[in-house]
Amino acid sequence: MKIGGNNYRTIWLDGGGEAVAVIDQTKLPHSFEVIRLSTMQEAARAILTMQVRGAPLIGVTAAYGLALAMRVDPSDASLAEAISHLARQRPTAVNLRWALEEMRRHLQPLAVNHRAQAAFSRAARLADDDVETCRRIGAHGLEIVRAIAAKKKPGEPVNILTHCNAGWLACVDWGTATSPMYQAHDAGVTLHVWVDETRPRNQGAALTAFELGAHGIPHTLITDNAGGHLMQHGKVDLVIVGTDRVTATGDVANKIGTYLKALAAKDTGVPFYVALPHSTIDWTLDDGFAIPIEERSGDEVLQLTGRSATGEVHVFDIAPDGCRAANPAFDVTPARLVSGLITERGVCPATREGLRQLYPEGQCAA
Amino acid sequence: MKIGGNNYRTIWLDGGGEAVAVIDQTKLPHSFEVIRLSTMQEAARAILTMQVRGAPLIGVTAAYGLALAMRVDPSDASLAEAISHLARQRPTAVNLRWALEEMRRHLQPLAVNHRAQAAFSRAARLADDDVETCRRIGAHGLEIVRAIAAKKKPGEPVNILTHCNAGWLACVDWGTATSPMYQAHDAGVTLHVWVDETRPRNQGAALTAFELGAHGIPHTLITDNAGGHLMQHGKVDLVIVGTDRVTATGDVANKIGTYLKALAAKDTGVPFYVALPHSTIDWTLDDGFAIPIEERSGDEVLQLTGRSATGEVHVFDIAPDGCRAANPAFDVTPARLVSGLITERGVCPATREGLRQLYPEGQCAA
Repeated sequence: MKIGGNNYRTIWLDGGGEAVAVIDQTKLPHSFEVIRLSTMQEAARAILTMQVRGAPLIGVTAAYGLALAMRVDPSDASLAEAISHLARQRPTAVNLRWALEEMRRHLQPLAVNHRAQAAFSRAARLADDDVETCRRIGAHGLEIVRAIAAKKKPGEPVNILTHCNAGWLACVDWGTATSPMYQAHDAGVTLHVWVDETRPRNQGAALTAFELGAHGIPHTLITDNAGGHLMQHGKVDLVIVGTDRVTATGDVANKIGTYLKALAAKDTGVPFYVALPHSTIDWTLDDGFAIPIEERSGDEVLQLTGRSATGEVHVFDIAPDGCRAANPAFDVTPARLVSGLITERGVCPATREGLRQLYPEGQCAA
Repeated sequence: MKIGGNNYRTIWLDGGGEAVAVIDQTKLPHSFEVIRLSTMQEAARAILTMQVRGAPLIGVTAAYGLALAMRVDPSDASLAEAISHLARQRPTAVNLRWALEEMRRHLQPLAVNHRAQAAFSRAARLADDDVETCRRIGAHGLEIVRAIAAKKKPGEPVNILTHCNAGWLACVDWGTATSPMYQAHDAGVTLHVWVDETRPRNQGAALTAFELGAHGIPHTLITDNAGGHLMQHGKVDLVIVGTDRVTATGDVANKIGTYLKALAAKDTGVPFYVALPHSTIDWTLDDGFAIPIEERSGDEVLQLTGRSATGEVHVFDIAPDGCRAANPAFDVTPARLVSGLITERGVCPATREGLRQLYPEGQCAA
């Protein structure tokens, strides 16, 4: 999507394929910086420190990280070690493991001296596939947005609420939850997006507001506390969020706080949709509460990054000295609260039957 | 309650009654500063800028503000003008209007030259009454906490979640929601409090964490997003919040985001209590959605106050340049989501019948 009028992806090959370039998302929205990942360890570190984040982008970055490892040492031992190292950087998003499994299946049978090149080309294909997948998610989601727009008076916007960043910055392009927004906007549907701030890391304020603004979609930042009130007052037509893992029965793990918005949507009759690519479905799990939930550092709650009046970006303390904080990074929204899943194959109910109908091949989906 | 081992109230007469002293709550938790209010206008400004905040404390501050006005000009015109000026500083909390109405009823019949002294003594009585009211709220709430503690293994804490600051900093002493916590702690009940950060003004992180810490109650700061997840995992035994206005039918206006926690409590079977003094009940309203909801500046969402590594307190920008924000300050939790109301007269269901049973005198309650 566009930043300053230029089209970007979140990840690309730099300088004739020497390194992998990514946007450093920890620097947004205060500065736009591209960093180069030259080794597997740098790719792993970018995932861990959330310079890259978002379930689909983590998967593609891991795939490129594996390619960087293959260039140094394409042996079986190196392949196994790199996969294991990359996989343990983040526990909740299933796409990370999915992408690495894809790579392993593809590379393992190859002769050692062919693996590096094959790995780069497979990683590039995963990136391209993600773009196409997200485009299709948007096309299906667009129909939901159009149906709501059809009931509005001329010029009256469709109000969509989203939590965290399941935008193009979380993917390679388009985004999952934002893809219907970009496509509706580009198709001339009048839109307005309520952007949840998404404490503690403020992905809504820092990333979603940034990317919607850069593409020209009208939006308003709100605290995570405000969405229920807006829904009670008819100011939200539709909620669309992304997800880090969906069980075979339609339970949804997503950024902490998603469950609260789903409850409010249910209570107020607002449709609550989850947008996802097939790679986010964990066919091995039935119960959302079996999904491992990452506990991150309490410092993310106690501190925030901001820009002072003089333009410098600092980390600052917002709690009393010595205060302790807990920081669960995701929560699970039970399938009963989800109006539907928007996938690259269409929209389905958040049920085992719904998912099976779209993905009859189940665990073997590719 | 205690700060640095000393007992404090939030408001007191300074220097032989010359001025009203209050703790500047906009400076917490980074510094503890006492400011003097010497005129009605200064009192009004302290309410508007939230140097004092919290429904009961706003009421007492307004009463003292009126006393300061009476000292300058005790005429009928001055009385009416001061009441009108003070009342319009904050729209949602009914205690502000309640306290001013109390003062008017008391002062209007008096000879003009008796009004100033009578106003100070009436304001002092409102402050003392608030302390006693909050103490009683705590005594009734303590029974609820004890009943939960009785089912715990020895040493296992009762986990209470609270939103915003309905602490002693919001009142004169004890607090409403926190009064049961202080009394349980002082009675030797093992407690742990989950403190919602409460964006955008961070009253949880800045005030509740500060006051619980200063008094020695174990607590953990969490984002506003985390409470639902903690409830899903059995980590919350009880929610207690305060309120800015309760309707005659038990609907509860409180800090934005309260509704989301009430929904999660209902969904997970966690008891959800609201602590309040009689002055918070609006007998004239049946429907919570008729309560006016204050819209505050979007800057509160776009910026945060924090302390940099060098110890200076600054205002920081946390959103992209030019980003727009909306900032509704309160929401309404329907009575159906409330397990009970903890008042100074006992605990009752959040229903018209429940409230009438405790307050048969209804609108004339004093």
